[in-house]
Amino acid sequence: MEETARLTESIKELLGSGRSERLADVLDAAHAADVATALRELPLPEQVHLFRLLAPQPAGHVLSELDDATRTELMRALDEVEVSRILDRMPSDHVVEVVEELPRAEADKLLELMQEEKSEQVHELLEYGEKTAGRLMSTGFIAVHENATVMQAMEHIRKAATGDNAFYLYVVDEHDHLVGLVPLHRLLAAEPGTSVRGIRSENVESVTVDTDQEEVTRLARRSNLVEVPVVDGTRRLVGAISAGHLIDVIDEEATEDIQRLGGVGGDETVLDPARQVFRSRLVWRLVNLGTAVLAASVIGLFEASIHALATLAVFMPIVASMGGIATTQTATVAVRGLAVGDLTLGVLRRVLWKEVWLGLTTGAANGLVIAVIAYLWKGHWLLSAVLGVAMVFNMLVAAVVGTLVPVALKTFRVDPAIASSVIITTFTDVCGFFSFLGLATLLIRYLL
Amino acid sequence: MEETARLTESIKELLGSGRSERLADVLDAAHAADVATALRELPLPEQVHLFRLLAPQPAGHVLSELDDATRTELMRALDEVEVSRILDRMPSDHVVEVVEELPRAEADKLLELMQEEKSEQVHELLEYGEKTAGRLMSTGFIAVHENATVMQAMEHIRKAATGDNAFYLYVVDEHDHLVGLVPLHRLLAAEPGTSVRGIRSENVESVTVDTDQEEVTRLARRSNLVEVPVVDGTRRLVGAISAGHLIDVIDEEATEDIQRLGGVGGDETVLDPARQVFRSRLVWRLVNLGTAVLAASVIGLFEASIHALATLAVFMPIVASMGGIATTQTATVAVRGLAVGDLTLGVLRRVLWKEVWLGLTTGAANGLVIAVIAYLWKGHWLLSAVLGVAMVFNMLVAAVVGTLVPVALKTFRVDPAIASSVIITTFTDVCGFFSFLGLATLLIRYLL
Repeated sequence: MEETARLTESIKELLGSGRSERLADVLDAAHAADVATALRELPLPEQVHLFRLLAPQPAGHVLSELDDATRTELMRALDEVEVSRILDRMPSDHVVEVVEELPRAEADKLLELMQEEKSEQVHELLEYGEKTAGRLMSTGFIAVHENATVMQAMEHIRKAATGDNAFYLYVVDEHDHLVGLVPLHRLLAAEPGTSVRGIRSENVESVTVDTDQEEVTRLARRSNLVEVPVVDGTRRLVGAISAGHLIDVIDEEATEDIQRLGGVGGDETVLDPARQVFRSRLVWRLVNLGTAVLAASVIGLFEASIHALATLAVFMPIVASMGGIATTQTATVAVRGLAVGDLTLGVLRRVLWKEVWLGLTTGAANGLVIAVIAYLWKGHWLLSAVLGVAMVFNMLVAAVVGTLVPVALKTFRVDPAIASSVIITTFTDVCGFFSFLGLATLLIRYLL
Repeated sequence: MEETARLTESIKELLGSGRSERLADVLDAAHAADVATALRELPLPEQVHLFRLLAPQPAGHVLSELDDATRTELMRALDEVEVSRILDRMPSDHVVEVVEELPRAEADKLLELMQEEKSEQVHELLEYGEKTAGRLMSTGFIAVHENATVMQAMEHIRKAATGDNAFYLYVVDEHDHLVGLVPLHRLLAAEPGTSVRGIRSENVESVTVDTDQEEVTRLARRSNLVEVPVVDGTRRLVGAISAGHLIDVIDEEATEDIQRLGGVGGDETVLDPARQVFRSRLVWRLVNLGTAVLAASVIGLFEASIHALATLAVFMPIVASMGGIATTQTATVAVRGLAVGDLTLGVLRRVLWKEVWLGLTTGAANGLVIAVIAYLWKGHWLLSAVLGVAMVFNMLVAAVVGTLVPVALKTFRVDPAIASSVIITTFTDVCGFFSFLGLATLLIRYLL
């Protein structure tokens, strides 16, 4: 982080003093990701000025590293021809990342201005659905026929002159079907005359172009591949997904889970313009308003009791709040467990019992504490007991709901992370108000 | 996922019918991660039986892939000598992963039984602090002196006979200082007689053995390295962190953020025994109880108003709930933005204005909706107005608190994710109750 901050500082200084030549040198030596970070903190005209100091290749890297909001703004401020020249120098999978975020018309315009061959490659990749392996893959992999010798394979790599991201040599048969791979170090260590068939790893798992990106990362974790091969419907090898993209997707999926649990869209970034996120924020707040009104209507049933004993209103939110934290805790662990593949149906019973036990024990502990606090505060032992009992009951509900709702959503192929606090705590709010106020109403004549 | 489920099924079947030989074949052909998943779903004696059918090398892979809880139980059920023979076959960084989770005495016992050389390597790695680069690195990297020729480097790789995870050739000077790296495909494509100095990438960033693992992943993202080199205090190259470990750490850090936001420990998995997580769950619930009592005490100040107008108690939780969702949304985006490096001090003002604007607009929209609902329900326009105004006010508080608290925590080097709903919604609970009930109390004579 410090290195990034230092670069940002020196860029701002050099911009201020107008020393463009020195600035170009500094940019030249810096990491693209750091330049991108510095760029985001500048006003748009300075972003444009800075960006134009970059050579086309590094400019492409910076474009890849920028967040969507800043990139879109910057690209609109630049000349289209200028942008298309930079895109021409980028690998096609990176161009896809950039143009897929643009409105259709703007993307088409840029693609038209690009070199025909690159533009066609990009068009092909864009045919694949969003968030599929096809969209992520690079077509710049190296493959040889299984009958090739190690020497021939090496010759092929020399000619292919790929970028810095080739780590495997893929092995295909006469139909271009993937039949293995050879890590490059193994190729290096092999006798030149042997056939690649003899040194390949067989049974290499691959994904198809339509495979969902989350599934791709699961395969990468399972198989310890740093690059995931992609095949088409006829099992022909058509691309490979790089480690960089895999990490991007893992980050993206984690962001989605975190945000959905927090009742946010799933792909929001801090720099997204307010207008763009307004709708999704509002929708969740309205959903929450709906569930809150539902909970309030339960309270409405007991208005007479509250009127008779206003102290009930004081303790009411405590029961709801404790149910809320218990559900959130349980659901958080369950949702994450489902995402990383730890929570499967085979272990559900074991997990459920664990949660019920935790609900009972922590419920009893918390119930006791709050009963004591309530007694010290209001000096009313029966009210304290009612509060304690309602607490235990609510924590049990939280344990069951927090575990089963995410699992049920997953079973119905809905993202379990939308079982966010917004939705799921409604159960405990309603149950909490009902048990506490209901019990109090039953016993109201002893409470007054 | 389906492949994993299928394997689990056939393992259970073969176990049931006692066909151990066929079972051994099935296990032999399966991915270690899939075997680990199947294992978790079996009772302990069957786990032991199954595990013993594995050859030592695959057994090591399975051990690496198991979750901590299952692995610890399984290892205790096995013979110590048996386990140490398996550990002998594992790369030292994987052995570290396994033994660091065990109590000190058990770990020492196993290390004593292991081969001396491997055991010493593991001891050295365990000297480094938890969650540092030193703990994650493998010492099995390939390095040559900068004066070596391409041919000599190739010869060196042939002799080193590393595992399948060597992707870079590191270049060092006479003090073993890292002075560059060469991706293997570039080595393959180079003329045998040239010096590696001529084809290396210079300015390769590295981490030190003490670097925090989160910082390591940030470097990996920034620099597009599939393996991160590690140097010691004197800048000597001592290890490299593989892509697999990088992905593990990224998952781990995401889990930590997700769980802390949800008020859970940070490294809990669904299969952790209840006793083990009891304390951390209880602590958060008690903290939440404390903040809930704080909020309740605000309500206590207005008990007279509630006694006079019990309807206030009905609407009160709606204000709190809406403040809660607004704070959670804002804080979630901020915490994730801090984690992936999008939210820096340079853009804080921009983010804060965005959130305030969102608070104001969604607050107005929600305030209007709830005012209408309240009017239709209770037919009291002034009460509805008070509710609407309190809503807008609370959403503004949520916008400011949800943005600034995580940033402030980060500035003070505290994990921003502990600004979980538990802590941060206390602000909006208190402010919400205060604004709604306070306003109502001021206007009480017009409300009755």
